[in-house]
Amino acid sequence: MTTSPNDTLLRALARKPTEHTPIWLMRQAGRYLPEYTATRKRAGSFLGLAQNPDFATEVTLQPLERYPLDAAILFSDILTVPDAMGLGLYFSEGEGPRFRDPVRDEAAVAKLHVPDLLRLRYVFDAVQQIRSALAGRVPLIGFSGSPWTLACYMVEGGGSDDFRTIKTMLYQRPDLVERILEVNIAAVAAYLNAQIEAGAQAIMIFDTWGGVLADGVYQRYSLAPMRQVLAQLKAHHEGVPIPSIVFTKGGAHWIAEIAEIGASAIGLDWTANLAAARVAVGERCALQGNLDPAVLFAGEAQIRAEARRVLESFGAPNGPHAPNTAGHVFNLGHGISQFTPPDAVAVLVDEVHSTSRKQRGC
Amino acid sequence: MTTSPNDTLLRALARKPTEHTPIWLMRQAGRYLPEYTATRKRAGSFLGLAQNPDFATEVTLQPLERYPLDAAILFSDILTVPDAMGLGLYFSEGEGPRFRDPVRDEAAVAKLHVPDLLRLRYVFDAVQQIRSALAGRVPLIGFSGSPWTLACYMVEGGGSDDFRTIKTMLYQRPDLVERILEVNIAAVAAYLNAQIEAGAQAIMIFDTWGGVLADGVYQRYSLAPMRQVLAQLKAHHEGVPIPSIVFTKGGAHWIAEIAEIGASAIGLDWTANLAAARVAVGERCALQGNLDPAVLFAGEAQIRAEARRVLESFGAPNGPHAPNTAGHVFNLGHGISQFTPPDAVAVLVDEVHSTSRKQRGC
Repeated sequence: MTTSPNDTLLRALARKPTEHTPIWLMRQAGRYLPEYTATRKRAGSFLGLAQNPDFATEVTLQPLERYPLDAAILFSDILTVPDAMGLGLYFSEGEGPRFRDPVRDEAAVAKLHVPDLLRLRYVFDAVQQIRSALAGRVPLIGFSGSPWTLACYMVEGGGSDDFRTIKTMLYQRPDLVERILEVNIAAVAAYLNAQIEAGAQAIMIFDTWGGVLADGVYQRYSLAPMRQVLAQLKAHHEGVPIPSIVFTKGGAHWIAEIAEIGASAIGLDWTANLAAARVAVGERCALQGNLDPAVLFAGEAQIRAEARRVLESFGAPNGPHAPNTAGHVFNLGHGISQFTPPDAVAVLVDEVHSTSRKQRGC
Repeated sequence: MTTSPNDTLLRALARKPTEHTPIWLMRQAGRYLPEYTATRKRAGSFLGLAQNPDFATEVTLQPLERYPLDAAILFSDILTVPDAMGLGLYFSEGEGPRFRDPVRDEAAVAKLHVPDLLRLRYVFDAVQQIRSALAGRVPLIGFSGSPWTLACYMVEGGGSDDFRTIKTMLYQRPDLVERILEVNIAAVAAYLNAQIEAGAQAIMIFDTWGGVLADGVYQRYSLAPMRQVLAQLKAHHEGVPIPSIVFTKGGAHWIAEIAEIGASAIGLDWTANLAAARVAVGERCALQGNLDPAVLFAGEAQIRAEARRVLESFGAPNGPHAPNTAGHVFNLGHGISQFTPPDAVAVLVDEVHSTSRKQRGC
């Protein structure tokens, strides 16, 4: 089984024509779904859920039972890799993920190493189980945090408002940050390749915190490491190409540079203008995005209108690229909010499918 | 007294040649200075400080005693205007500013009105006192939050991670948000004009939250209201032009559009590339920015190197605009952090002054 009956996503990522614009949602398996919350309760904790392949498979498939989405994405945590490095991931109520042993000084940096992939076996087992459970319905996307984004959590020890700790290190001791990134590049590449071997049919790199960096620093500490990861990825698995998506939140103004690093597609947040992005990127990459997740708090008519606006901004009937609608994967510009009413997602998926079919004259 | 002995800032905002690149820092009167903390303690609270013209004058002048900065900026709070509307501003420990009566429904919106400027007299008194105390040393900048940014606080009732409340209102009931913005436009214009009459020699509009909006929505709900404010501002006072600066944090990709709304200068955060911004803006506006405030946590050599990088990116010796260095006001890309060592600011100001003089062949 090398292709799926619904391979719309894979064709769109390859900028090939599709019958409709494929749609999936970042964090589509998540807290806005009551069935997710129920499974999480059974699992006992978030980590209990993420580290158990049976539970991970269950929640990955949940949104596909409700909505005709065009892709599944592995349910996992962005911090599995540094956890496997021995930093001691835990979740504190209301504060999100934390590390017991953040990487704050030269000694801690010196100890860092690419983790034994066996410690991440629960992830690859989940990929395998999900792929098998999908039975070709839709493609499965694997993912990782970017080397820079992982470094932020590793040094800060958790989330941050100002990234003061890692930025202080970056400006005072760039050699330490470079060493962390070196380890992360190798670890992320190995991690993603193992996901591909386990059955991931596309991969996505979440560069959640690239957008906090200064121009010039971003290119060096976030973009270049992602380029190095992409260069080490298996381009094919069992003869089938494995497309890649990179997403720097807050990176709209860097899109022409992001287009140079060898990804198949660029994820965009809702602040980006898809038409302008398409001009900047040309034929180099597909684009993924970019509805504001807050639109899903509105009523049906507004959700439909805003979804059409995104579709039209990519392939505007009067735009420079009309009527070519190839190379767009519809998504939100950020993960779906836990406060989203599940019915809103049904409306969105329906509108994207029906309007994009009409755009193609179907 | 219509001009200052040091009018470098005003000339730079007018894109006229200057002997050096002027520098001031957003939030330059603030918690990183022990003398500020001492005054705040005497004032009893943040609001006690901000609403007392004597204290406001004292802290506004403090950074000028330490550093040869090229401008003073009125010490005040961004939420004075909605407070004067009767929303009940208060500060809760660790949570920042809050409103007792946020604007959440049709009835609350209907009650909103442009506040009596007499309720803001403490601000204009402070402007007058500061201007008089400055005695022409450097120009005084007045400021306001943008209509959209004020609306965010008014509807959310404080800060927010996702701006869910106002965005829900925006997508569900755009008429309500439009009404709030209408009131805010009139209020901000009147507020800034009163600051100009009291002695502010330049004004700045802080659009702190414009960058959370989707492309298209930003133009309508943040940028257009700022254009309306600017159109209502006094262009001159006592025969002297009053320049304006607009700053949308996270707005680097919108800069060509921001350049169209009639401001003298555009503030840029550290993610923007000054050379690219200059190409996008052309001769329409000066640029203000854009060092990452985190650079000030580094050592002297790195602070100097990063300051030079910013200066050179604007007027790169080999760049398309060399050797023209007119039209740049050096600043941070965001307010200075409370954790900044005061000595770092001295290093920064010295480097900006000395390198920018060298750039001009002085």
